[in-house]
Amino acid sequence: MKEINIPKTTINRLSLYLKCFIELSESKINFISSSELANFIGLNPAQVRKDLSYFGKFGRRGLGYNVEILRHKISEILGTQKLWKVAIIGIGNLGRALLTYAGFKDRGFKIVAGFDNAPDKIGWEIDGIKIYSIEELEKIIKKEKIELIILTTPKSAVQEIINRLKNINVKGILNFAGKYLLADEKLKIRNVDISLELEQLTFFISNRNFYKRR
Amino acid sequence: MKEINIPKTTINRLSLYLKCFIELSESKINFISSSELANFIGLNPAQVRKDLSYFGKFGRRGLGYNVEILRHKISEILGTQKLWKVAIIGIGNLGRALLTYAGFKDRGFKIVAGFDNAPDKIGWEIDGIKIYSIEELEKIIKKEKIELIILTTPKSAVQEIINRLKNINVKGILNFAGKYLLADEKLKIRNVDISLELEQLTFFISNRNFYKRR
Repeated sequence: MKEINIPKTTINRLSLYLKCFIELSESKINFISSSELANFIGLNPAQVRKDLSYFGKFGRRGLGYNVEILRHKISEILGTQKLWKVAIIGIGNLGRALLTYAGFKDRGFKIVAGFDNAPDKIGWEIDGIKIYSIEELEKIIKKEKIELIILTTPKSAVQEIINRLKNINVKGILNFAGKYLLADEKLKIRNVDISLELEQLTFFISNRNFYKRR
Repeated sequence: MKEINIPKTTINRLSLYLKCFIELSESKINFISSSELANFIGLNPAQVRKDLSYFGKFGRRGLGYNVEILRHKISEILGTQKLWKVAIIGIGNLGRALLTYAGFKDRGFKIVAGFDNAPDKIGWEIDGIKIYSIEELEKIIKKEKIELIILTTPKSAVQEIINRLKNINVKGILNFAGKYLLADEKLKIRNVDISLELEQLTFFISNRNFYKRR
């Protein structure tokens, strides 16, 4: 595999392409043109062709893109052809919502454990997923071979948990805890901030007449 | 105001800068250098200077950036100096979690109503926020002057709700419903997909040795 040197915005769109190819595949559609794809994602066809060209030559003139091949290729690139085991730390409202979130299953993610430090939550089972004491974090993560963490604790608990996670074989964290975290070489971190999503929305609303889309 | 022509990635980072300036302001720190800011956000100082230069000349050599001025300026750019009234449609697990999400308050967003069609949820009050029947959507949105919607319904309910929202004065939708929606001139839409966030994480984990950061 060669070094990949592609814009982050393209990588971001890969998930959208994948979602589109999954739906097409389920609808038994075998080929799609760049303009149909563009229409689905809200881009122009030239951008779609450019995005997909980073990963090889897939389109065939007059026929379009092969849905199955691209579905597998993009899934491979995104690393979701394997099943990733995920734990959720912090079983408050958001943690509980994500524990039962139906959208993970067919995208290659399986929630296998929850963690909390409230005695009345430990030992619960929600949709077959057990809630463990945070004291058992290292033990259960190793035993279940968990590689990804969804972090939904209060801000104040974040630093200690990160320190503990760095000592075991966790590979990535999706961080909803409201404290901005920096990734390092060993541990990849993706910060999700729902207020930020709303701010991006109000930016485009407030500047709709002035902002030139790139 | 002139036409704004700045990269989307910069706009994305504005929320991070704002968050940083809010924290600094609360800690009574008045000035910050580009390298300290860069360190906080995980960028290089040159990128920070470039990002902020799109919006005017704020830095002063030897003194750094004025925290209060930038806090207000960025908040103004993001459109969050006013208070936005928000309704949540779909009071399942995720809707309930967002209804009580503490992070909205100090960022300019106020949840004022929830909507659902389950008879046992209608009439509930959670943290002072009332849950209305979806039949009352238009009436309550007009009465409360709600401009933003957080959509947490099942996929199947999305299209009907969007059609109804287009007929009233709603300006933006943050869409968690799992069905990818395209914005139009009148209604801005931001799609949030938690599986997509996990996929972005597994991409960077799977390609950590090959991906060159831009």
